[in-house]
Amino acid sequence: MREDETAASGEDRLIARYFRPLARHPGAFALDDDAAALTLPAGCDLVLTADAIVAGIHFFPEDPSDKVARKALRVNLSDLAAKGARPLGFLLTLALPGQVSDTWLAGFASGLGADVELFGCPLLGGDTVRTSGPVTISITAVGAVPHGGMLRRSGAQAGDRILVTGTIGDAALGLLLRRDRALAERCGLAPGLRDRLVERYLLPEPRNVLAQLLGAHASAAIDVSDGLAGDLAKLCRPSGVAAEVEIARVPLSEGARTILSREPALIETIVTGGDDYEVLATMSGGRIDGFRRQASALGVAVTEIGKIIVGKGETRFLDAAGRPLLLAHPSFSHF
Amino acid sequence: MREDETAASGEDRLIARYFRPLARHPGAFALDDDAAALTLPAGCDLVLTADAIVAGIHFFPEDPSDKVARKALRVNLSDLAAKGARPLGFLLTLALPGQVSDTWLAGFASGLGADVELFGCPLLGGDTVRTSGPVTISITAVGAVPHGGMLRRSGAQAGDRILVTGTIGDAALGLLLRRDRALAERCGLAPGLRDRLVERYLLPEPRNVLAQLLGAHASAAIDVSDGLAGDLAKLCRPSGVAAEVEIARVPLSEGARTILSREPALIETIVTGGDDYEVLATMSGGRIDGFRRQASALGVAVTEIGKIIVGKGETRFLDAAGRPLLLAHPSFSHF
Repeated sequence: MREDETAASGEDRLIARYFRPLARHPGAFALDDDAAALTLPAGCDLVLTADAIVAGIHFFPEDPSDKVARKALRVNLSDLAAKGARPLGFLLTLALPGQVSDTWLAGFASGLGADVELFGCPLLGGDTVRTSGPVTISITAVGAVPHGGMLRRSGAQAGDRILVTGTIGDAALGLLLRRDRALAERCGLAPGLRDRLVERYLLPEPRNVLAQLLGAHASAAIDVSDGLAGDLAKLCRPSGVAAEVEIARVPLSEGARTILSREPALIETIVTGGDDYEVLATMSGGRIDGFRRQASALGVAVTEIGKIIVGKGETRFLDAAGRPLLLAHPSFSHF
Repeated sequence: MREDETAASGEDRLIARYFRPLARHPGAFALDDDAAALTLPAGCDLVLTADAIVAGIHFFPEDPSDKVARKALRVNLSDLAAKGARPLGFLLTLALPGQVSDTWLAGFASGLGADVELFGCPLLGGDTVRTSGPVTISITAVGAVPHGGMLRRSGAQAGDRILVTGTIGDAALGLLLRRDRALAERCGLAPGLRDRLVERYLLPEPRNVLAQLLGAHASAAIDVSDGLAGDLAKLCRPSGVAAEVEIARVPLSEGARTILSREPALIETIVTGGDDYEVLATMSGGRIDGFRRQASALGVAVTEIGKIIVGKGETRFLDAAGRPLLLAHPSFSHF
C-alpha cells in the first residue's frame, strides 16, 4: 500500500460530507465506527421500528429530496408516537442509483437534518449502497418507553371510545390531486386548499408530541398509515373486539370537505387511502375530556369517532342513517 | 366495510407465512404490532448496526435465496462480533420486485430461520415493500455489551500486535473464480478447494463466538468486509497510529495458497478484495497467547500478522525482504 494512502473511498466521502453532520449523538461516534452504542434511560424499554420508502412506489422520483428524506424519517417517528415512545435516534440505509446528483443528496441531507433537530432524533448509523433500481430509503427508529409501557394494538376493550388525531384523508386526496389534474377544478377547490392537501401527502406530521400522553391514557393505538379502515381493523383483530365508526364524525380538513361535497364517493378514498400518519387510539370514556384538553394544549386536535364493541375484528363505518358503508378496498397494500 | 372483513393484505399474508415463525422473541409480538419492545440486560449498552445487500451488487441474482438471507444477516452479525457485542435480535426490511417467487421467499425464510437459531438472534420486526429494482435486503442488528464496553476502531496503540481470525482472501478469490471460469484450471485448483472458496463468498462465517473474548482483550477491532488493507487503514486512522503487516504471515486457506503459487499478483485481491467477515483486532503482546488459546478452544484460529507503530494512519504490507507492497486499489468501494 502506498505510504501516503489517505484517500477515503467514495462511500466514506459521501458519509463525511452529507451524513456526519447529522450524527451528533456521542454514541454515533461521528459515523466513524461499525456500530453505535446507546445507554438506555434507567427503567426504560427499547422500542424498535423499521419502515422503508421506495421511489416510484411511496414517493414520486421528482419529489424534492428534502421532503423525501423527512417523509422517510417521519413515517418511522409516527410509529414511535403511536407506541408512546420517545425517539432516541435512527439508522439510515440508503440504496442509491448511480445517477443521483450531489444536489439531490445535499437536499436529502438538509431535510433530514431539519427533522433531526425538530424531533430530537439523531442519526446513529446506517449504510449506503449502490443499486441498479430506484432510490430506496430504509430507516430503523429507536425509542424508549417506561418499562413494560409500550402501547400495543391489542389493548382495546368493548366500551372504549375510538379517537383520532388531526384530520383524515388529506394525504390520499393530495395524491389523487397529483394524479388527476382536473379534480381540483371539478370540485371548485381553491389553490391554497389544493396545495395543503398535496403537502400532506409529501410531508406527514407525526404526532410525537403526544407520545407520553398516549402512553398514559390510551388502551391501544396504531398510526394510520394504510388507511383508517384498515388500521382500525389491525387494532381490533389482536384486541379481540369490533368497532363502529360514525362517518360524519371523522375529522376532515376544509379541502377534504370541499372535495367530498362535490364527489361524495371519495369518502372511500378518505377512510382507506392511507398516508395519514395520524394516531388512532382507544381509551375509556372517562379519560377522553382530559386527554383531549391536554392534546389541544400541545397543539393537536383529537376527535372521538366511534366506539369499540364486542366482536371479532369487524369494523363498521356508519352513515348518518346508521347504514354501514361498503368498502371495495378496505386497506391499502402494495402487494 | 364488509362486516365479514377478515381478509388480510398481501403484505400481511407474506409476513404471516414466512416471517412470523422467525419472530419468537416475546418483544417481537409475533410481528403483530408496529414496533418491538426490548428490555436490555442490566448494566449493558445497546449496540446498533445496519448493513444492506442488493442483488447484482452484493450477491448474484441467481444465488440460492437461503444463502442470500444468511449472508444479509451474517454481515450484520459480523459487525456485532467485532464490537464485542452479543446479538439480541434484528429488524429486516425487504424490498421485493414483483416477480419474486414463493419458492425464493420460502428459501429465504428457511435460511434466515436457520441462522436465527444458530446465532440466537431473533427477528424483531421490519418492513416489506415493493420495488421496481432488484431485491434489496436491509438489516439492522441489535446487540448488547457491558456498559461503556463497545470495542472501538479507535483504541489501537503503538506497540500493539495485529491479529486476524480465520483466513483472508477466500471470498474475494471465490468471487473471482465465479467470474473467471478458467482460473481454477489455470491454477490446478482441485474442485473441492474451488467450491470451498466460492462457498466462502456465498456464506460468511462471522466470529460471534469470539465477541466476549474480544471485548476482554482487544484494544481495537473491525470486521474485515472491505478488504484487509482498507479495513486496517480504517482502524489506524481513528486510532492515530500506523501499521506494518508481514504479508507472509497473513493466514491463507489451502485454496488461496494454491492460486497464489501460480498467480502471485493475486496477493492484491487477497488483501484488498473484501467479504472476508473475519475480525481484525489489536492487542498488547502480553495478551496474545491467552487470547489465541481461548479462541482456539472456541474453534477459531487467530494469527498475528503485524504490529501497530507510531504514525498517522499509514499501513504497509511488507514482503519477505521487507519491501512494501504497492496496492492499486487499497480498499473496495461500490462508489
